Amino acid sequence: MERISTKTTHEGKLSSVRVDEFRYEDGETAEREIVAHPGAVGIVAHDDEIVYMVRQPREAVGEEALLELPAGKLDVAGESPIECAKRELVEEVGVEAAGWEELTRFYSSPGFTDEQVFLFLATDLTEVEAQPTEGERIEIVKVPLVNLEQVIEECEDAKSLVGLLLLGPRL
Amino acid sequence: MERISTKTTHEGKLSSVRVDEFRYEDGETAEREIVAHPGAVGIVAHDDEIVYMVRQPREAVGEEALLELPAGKLDVAGESPIECAKRELVEEVGVEAAGWEELTRFYSSPGFTDEQVFLFLATDLTEVEAQPTEGERIEIVKVPLVNLEQVIEECEDAKSLVGLLLLGPRL
Repeated sequence: MERISTKTTHEGKLSSVRVDEFRYEDGETAEREIVAHPGAVGIVAHDDEIVYMVRQPREAVGEEALLELPAGKLDVAGESPIECAKRELVEEVGVEAAGWEELTRFYSSPGFTDEQVFLFLATDLTEVEAQPTEGERIEIVKVPLVNLEQVIEECEDAKSLVGLLLLGPRL
Repeated sequence: MERISTKTTHEGKLSSVRVDEFRYEDGETAEREIVAHPGAVGIVAHDDEIVYMVRQPREAVGEEALLELPAGKLDVAGESPIECAKRELVEEVGVEAAGWEELTRFYSSPGFTDEQVFLFLATDLTEVEAQPTEGERIEIVKVPLVNLEQVIEECEDAKSLVGLLLLGPRL
């Protein structure tokens, strides 16, 4: 499979749309519309008692308050996923971690967008001061690990489901 | 939170982009760029021995062949998620199921798109003839359930990870 042309059809503030043409090994070609995204990180930060989550409005899906893992977009030039995860964990929930491990990485919806999410496990935690970005309406929620199964049932977004489902067997 | 205006900024073939303005209860307002998506279904179809998966090119993420759960977009007017799941399971892998149950539903990436994925468990299976849509390059893969953990490590997309992680404890 080889990309033989690309054309940007929309430049938004956050995402852009392009139409790429591909040629397969048998010579056939096909056009695909692709929503470009810089990628994101999600963090499963826990100690023996709790996992840190956030509750925030998600206007795109019409939800006043989704309970999610801390996360952020890879929108700082030159910043690696792990650096982004460390920064976001401090900014969003006011936590520094000494132990970091990549849990998994996945495409959010590979039929239409190139967004890839890097999920990290963060342990050996120290609370510092959160530094919320202006305009973010983020409530920090310390979820007791004994409630993990119940919280997995409440979760409504991909990264939080994947992260918490992978956390369970490690506890 | 209330949506006070909406403006479509791009109409693509598959997805469109809009900019919505929201007013929060404290009176503040914010604009959000949202990629609109019709939603999708994913299916965990298994018997005592195997779970059905598919391998297909995913041009959006530059992958020749991703191993995924069978899935499809909610792009037929008036079709419910469960009807779509039944249709896709026949079309993509040539399987009919007598037992259906909703496993979960989740937003793929609620920071930027409204895509919601409905995940179903399908059991009591009968093989029929697959009806691939023209241009789809789908290889049917029967994954032995004894290899489930290994396949979870290979999976690279959100719906397959969530579906297979939820399947494990049910076996």
